[in-house]
Parts: sequence; structure tokens; C-alpha cells
Amino acid sequence: MNEKKTVNVGLIGFGTVGQGVVKILDRNLPLLESKFGGQLRLTWVCDKYSAPLRRAGVHRPRFTRRWEDVVRDPSVDVVVELIGGYEPARTIVLSALRSGKHVATANKALLAKYWSEVFETTRKTKSLIYFEASVGAGIPIIQSINEGLAANRIQAIYGILNGTTNYILTRMTQDGLDFAKALKEAQREGFAEADPSFDIEGTDAAHKVSVLASLASGTWVHLDDVHRQGIGNLDVWDVLFAQERLGYVTKLLGIIRFQDRLMEARVHPALIPSAHPFASVNREYNAVYVYGDAAGDIMFYGKGAGQMTAASAVVSDILFLARQIVSGTAGKIPYVSFHPSQRMKISPLSRSVCRHYLRFMTDDKPGVLSKITGILGQKGVSIEAVYQSFGSDRFSSRLPALSGRSGVPIVIVTHKAMHGAVQRALEKIDRLPVVRRKTIHLRIEEL
Amino acid sequence: MNEKKTVNVGLIGFGTVGQGVVKILDRNLPLLESKFGGQLRLTWVCDKYSAPLRRAGVHRPRFTRRWEDVVRDPSVDVVVELIGGYEPARTIVLSALRSGKHVATANKALLAKYWSEVFETTRKTKSLIYFEASVGAGIPIIQSINEGLAANRIQAIYGILNGTTNYILTRMTQDGLDFAKALKEAQREGFAEADPSFDIEGTDAAHKVSVLASLASGTWVHLDDVHRQGIGNLDVWDVLFAQERLGYVTKLLGIIRFQDRLMEARVHPALIPSAHPFASVNREYNAVYVYGDAAGDIMFYGKGAGQMTAASAVVSDILFLARQIVSGTAGKIPYVSFHPSQRMKISPLSRSVCRHYLRFMTDDKPGVLSKITGILGQKGVSIEAVYQSFGSDRFSSRLPALSGRSGVPIVIVTHKAMHGAVQRALEKIDRLPVVRRKTIHLRIEEL
Repeated sequence: MNEKKTVNVGLIGFGTVGQGVVKILDRNLPLLESKFGGQLRLTWVCDKYSAPLRRAGVHRPRFTRRWEDVVRDPSVDVVVELIGGYEPARTIVLSALRSGKHVATANKALLAKYWSEVFETTRKTKSLIYFEASVGAGIPIIQSINEGLAANRIQAIYGILNGTTNYILTRMTQDGLDFAKALKEAQREGFAEADPSFDIEGTDAAHKVSVLASLASGTWVHLDDVHRQGIGNLDVWDVLFAQERLGYVTKLLGIIRFQDRLMEARVHPALIPSAHPFASVNREYNAVYVYGDAAGDIMFYGKGAGQMTAASAVVSDILFLARQIVSGTAGKIPYVSFHPSQRMKISPLSRSVCRHYLRFMTDDKPGVLSKITGILGQKGVSIEAVYQSFGSDRFSSRLPALSGRSGVPIVIVTHKAMHGAVQRALEKIDRLPVVRRKTIHLRIEEL
Repeated sequence: MNEKKTVNVGLIGFGTVGQGVVKILDRNLPLLESKFGGQLRLTWVCDKYSAPLRRAGVHRPRFTRRWEDVVRDPSVDVVVELIGGYEPARTIVLSALRSGKHVATANKALLAKYWSEVFETTRKTKSLIYFEASVGAGIPIIQSINEGLAANRIQAIYGILNGTTNYILTRMTQDGLDFAKALKEAQREGFAEADPSFDIEGTDAAHKVSVLASLASGTWVHLDDVHRQGIGNLDVWDVLFAQERLGYVTKLLGIIRFQDRLMEARVHPALIPSAHPFASVNREYNAVYVYGDAAGDIMFYGKGAGQMTAASAVVSDILFLARQIVSGTAGKIPYVSFHPSQRMKISPLSRSVCRHYLRFMTDDKPGVLSKITGILGQKGVSIEAVYQSFGSDRFSSRLPALSGRSGVPIVIVTHKAMHGAVQRALEKIDRLPVVRRKTIHLRIEEL
């Protein structure tokens, strides 16, 4: 058994989160060391773009622009990968694992795309990769699903997993901003990137769904298997109408549901009841709701974005690794077990059942409603409620004029119906001459 | 290194939770075994009161009424202690640890009273005790504070930690039941014991505060150091008045706050803003809010009581232990480190600052208010708002008549003031001839 008292950490990627890691080490080092009974040393900082460093906080790491320097240094025990994206992150992580080093990473893109390769490698090399920061930043959701709820067969996971989109939706809901204005606010406040498409289109949330679904199922749910729809097409009119008239709040949800041997795995905007705890998860906060067959429903809630909260998860991972390294047990217990190369069978969205919110823009003349409801009926979609003839006096003052208004709105809420049946009806309805534009279609998720 | 493939579990205490543990093992055994790569066998069930068992689910454990049979059996790897209370639980747990066995327990009373003795023993024997079920049942809060948030200096923990009292308060708040009726409902629904004093008086919550505070501080916060006040004296009038007029919800809170080298540790009913996530934690649900210096505020939420949710935590603990046992690493890494014999210095409640809700019952004549406010002013307590002359017409219809009404109510909300100053003022006020009964005093916690 190779016991050692000093754990050497090499940090690759010295951006926002990397600098947060150094801040925590600075601030709490004696406390952290007392938690694992050894010494922690930051021995390398690698960054391609930052100015060369002589010191990082109180630490005096060596600085390099070449990640190979870190991964090839035999004295490094833990490689912290914080550059994100697919490459060179994948090569760095695999090289580190193959050199017998352990890895802490926040990289959900890497895990979503290379889950199988990464965990097959750890199995062979008996090295460990921890990735708490990859989902929900500082919220300890990875460990909780993997360990704290290990007794359970996980039946469902719902999440508000992306801080940027949740911030935008919060501003739309609470302040009545349209999407473009809310996005600008998010950018101004540092909650959205200059190019926000990765968040807006649901890709970031889909990465996280892939990680959570893989972890919960013990198989591999590839990113491509996660149905993905973003919030870029949302109209604030629907957000406010749903809230004020129907009692629903609009959220971008990650949904994982196990049924028999199939799994639903998807990301899309959805209406949720305003009494649900998720409805009050606002701004950059994330929340994950896990339904286990024994524990019931457990919710986790916290800041889903930010330097220090992500760094909290990374440093906690470093500490687990350090504790195992100093006690000579690192790698003897795999962190993620199961079958990382087995692909999960995904149930298509079209077969998923829920209530639906439909907003049609139609000519303002008699007979339109009967045509629409007729087609819905033909496809087996039955109607719970119809809202039309919205005189401005009958509207709450918060409800905005429909942007680029053409025609009059009709809102229909359906009873539970198969998603595919609704889509087939809408294809037909949207070809009616009296229908002016593509119908808005949002799922109502009761969670 | 002593690697083994089969982990033998002895269960002591076959009540509600013990039977839940067997249900989970029955239902999920192959899944659970795949998670740690070995076999799990229930080899003993010990219970003093249950009928002798030939089988427990699909398992065929040996049955005994003497716990010594389990603890002395050298083939037993993990002892699960589910009898609760101080003795013989303490003797069982210490004997098991000293025999080199590992322990999983749900027993917060034991931990609150014997924290130091238990963890000093594990340090010597290199055996492990896991106790996830001791707080928040299935919510993985123990592991999260201990590991998932390890990077943080914990600055505060707030919790709704007792399902019975939260159920009662929910019924008082939502249905306007008085305390006695709400308690009866709780008993009828199985959320309160026949003798509910342990829950009602805040003792159970105080045990949990002791466990969380000890864990978060790395020292020992003894039960006797936790200030404790129950909900037995709450009047539904104040609960409803605070909700409808002031926008506050009444909850029994566990509060842990670190300041400099002192800690606040207490349990008492408090008014919290109705927009706070805790305000919607209802019925038997628990929630714990952890504030870390890096992660920020993280909330955990789930059922705090119930057979299966508590058993979920116990079985997850068994799995951690099993995983370490089969890989030969069990006991090499202490689960709780730090200084279990060092006592934490507690800051007295009297020095704690908050806003206060005061409800006086006074004679209905002029000059009373000026006497009361005069005394508050003398003690340095300044007033934010006064509510009096409640004509029944001005009340919401939900507000009940004050039970055993004697005199007229005056409600005062103070600005932030030291608890001790308010208490000193009330001692004097309650001796005024115009004051008819002991004044109701509730803290307003902004969290």
C-alpha cells in the first residue's frame, strides 16, 4: 500500500472556476487538510491564454502552457481539468487516467460524449474521476445519486439545470421582458455568454441530463439520445398567459424517467404548476428533484452557476481523492460502477403522455375553432379548456400585446394526450388557411 | 488486505424502519449488489418484542432476542442498530465497533449524547459508523455536509428537522386547527406517537441539531448545549395572524450559526418570510438549508419521516460499508474526522439578534400601549409596528377567536433587538397589572 502524506494537484485551465479553486485553497487550506489528514499542494497551473503566473494566491505552482507538462510529471497525484469542451479535454483526462493519476473535472460535455471511454479507462487503470461540478455546480447531486441514494431504484429525475436560461425565464416571468431583452439583461449581469447559443438551445442542459441519466441507470445515455429543445422561440405572451390565467410557470426542464426497460431523457421548456417547489427556483438557481423507490421525492437546490459554487464542488472532489490517496485506498473502490458501455434504450418523445398548451394564431372569423377542435378530435386529442376572444379589458394589465401580431390568439389546453398525436394534429392544423403561423406548443408537466 | 465477496449484515431492532430495510433488500438486492460488486446477506435479526421470525422477506436470517448473539458472531461484518434511544443502543454500538464490526444507525439520540465516545472509539478500532438516517431520513444531508460540501467552511445550517411538528404546524396554518386538534390529526394519520412529547418539545429536533452541528464544526456540540423550545404553547391565533397580516409562516426551526469562534445552536418555533422556500415545506417533509462559504446556499428537501425513506438511508449506508469491505478499504479512511472530544463554545440565545413578534393580552383601557412601549424603549427595544383594536369586522374570517380570551390583544413587531433585552422587557411588562397573561414571544428569522 502506497501511503503518502502530501497530495500534489495540477490545475489545467485557469479561468473563472480554476481561479475559484485557488481562492478556496487559499482561504480554507488548514481546514481542508484537517479533513483528510495530509497536505495539499498546488504544484502546477497550466493555461493556454492567461498571463504567466509566479504565484496563485499563496501557492507557488510551476506555470506552463503545455498540459503535457502536468500529466507527465510523476509527482502529480490529481489532475484538475477545467478547460471544458471535447478536445483537448478528452486527451488530457484519458492521458492523466492512464498515467495512474486521478482526475477532478467540471466537464459535462466530455462526460456526455465520452462516458463509456472515460469509465472503461478508469476500470482498467484503477484510477478515479470525480465530476461533482459537472451538474448543479456546488449542489452535491452527483454524489447523492451515486451514493447517498444508492439504496434506491431511481424512477425519475427532474431538473432546472441551466442557470442562464433560468435567469432569462425568471426575468420574462417576473418582469414581463421579452426573450431578447431578458437575454440582454442576462448578458449584462454575467449570467449569459456573449454567444449564448449553447445554453439557450438546451445543449448544456442536455449534457447534464446525459450525465445524470448515465449515473442513475448505470448505463450510458449518449448526448444524442437526449431530446433537446431550447427557449429561443418562447414568446413572453405565453409565459405570462400561462402564469396568470392557468397557474403555470414556464421552466426549461431536464427530464429523466424510467419506465420498464425504457428511459425518457429530454430537455425542453415546459409549464409546471405554480405550487410546485420548482416554480420558486429563480434566476441563476438550479434544482434537481430525484424520485427514488424508497426515499420518495428528494429535492436539491442551490446556485447552479458562479465561480465559487462550481469551485466548491471541484475542491470537494479533490478532498475525496486526497483522503483516499493518503490512506492508500484510491482506486480500490470504483466511483461509478455498472455498465458504462451499455447503451440505454430511449423511449421516443412522441410516445410520452402529458397535457398540452397550444396557442393558435388564426383569422378572426366564425368556424375557426370548430375546424381546429375537429382535427384535434380526429387525432384522439381531447380538450380540457379553450380560451379565446381576449378583449384587452379582460386581460391583466401585465399581459403584453402579441409581438408581430397577426390574427387572433386561441389557447387550448388538452387533456392528457400522446405527444405524437398532438404533433400530427398540429401538422394538419398549421396547414389550414385560417391559421396564420406555426402553433405554439408547450408541454404541461405535472412532475 | 482482507478482501471478501460476501458482506454479512446483522439487524438489531425489527420495528418499522428495520422492516423497511428488509423490504428494500428484497426489492432491489441484485441492483444493490451490482453497486458494490459483492453479495449482501442478512444473517441475523434481533428483536426483543417481535414474534420469532423464520424468514424476513426472501432472507432466512437467524432470529434472536439477545443482541449479544449478533455482536459476538465473528462472521457479521455490519451491525445495523435500529432500536433507538440511549441504552442498550450505546452498549450495542460500542461493542460492535470494538469487535471490529462496522455500524449503520438511525439513532440521533445516541449520537447527540455520546458523539465523543462513539467517534473516539472508531478512531481506536478503525471501524466505521454511518448515520445518514439520523437526520432528514432519506435526504442525504449527512454525507453532503461531510463530503459533498467538504470544501466549504460551513457558516450556517437551518432546518425543518421534525416531521411530526411540521405536520402539526401545517394543519394549524392551512386549516386553522388549534394545536390540540392538529396533534390529534397527526396521531390519527400516523405522524405523531401516542406520547408525542419527544417531538412536540423539540427534543428530537435538538438531537438532530447536535448531530449536524458536531459534523459541521468538527467538534462536539452536546445536546445540552442546544437551546430547545417546543410548539406545545403555540396559539393558532398567532400562527394565522402572522401569516395573514405579516406575511410570515410559523415553523419549528433548528438553527446553527457560526460566528467567529462561537456557535449558535438552537431549536424553537419561529416566523419566517412566506416567500422563503421553507415556507412551502409542509406536512411530514423536512428541509435543510446549508450555507457554505464557497457553495453559497444549498437546500435539501424530502420526506423526513416514514418507513421507506429512513430505510433508504440505512441501506445506502450499508452499501458504502459493503463497498469498502469488499475492496478491503473499510476503516482506512475515517468517516468523521476532526476533534470529536473538543466541545464547541456556544453563544447564548440572549445575545442573538433578530426581529421579534410580541402579542400582549391587556386590559381594554387607555394608556396600556404607552406603558408597554415605554418599557420596551427603556430596554433599548425599538418598535417597527403595532397592531391593536382588532374589530372582528376588520379581521379575515379565518382568524379565530382567541382561546380563553381575557383582555384584548396587542401585537408588536420590533426592529432587530437582542433576545435578552426583549426578555428583560417582557419580564417587567408581564408584571404590569394591566397585562393579563404571559406575553407570547416569537422570533422572526429572516434566514
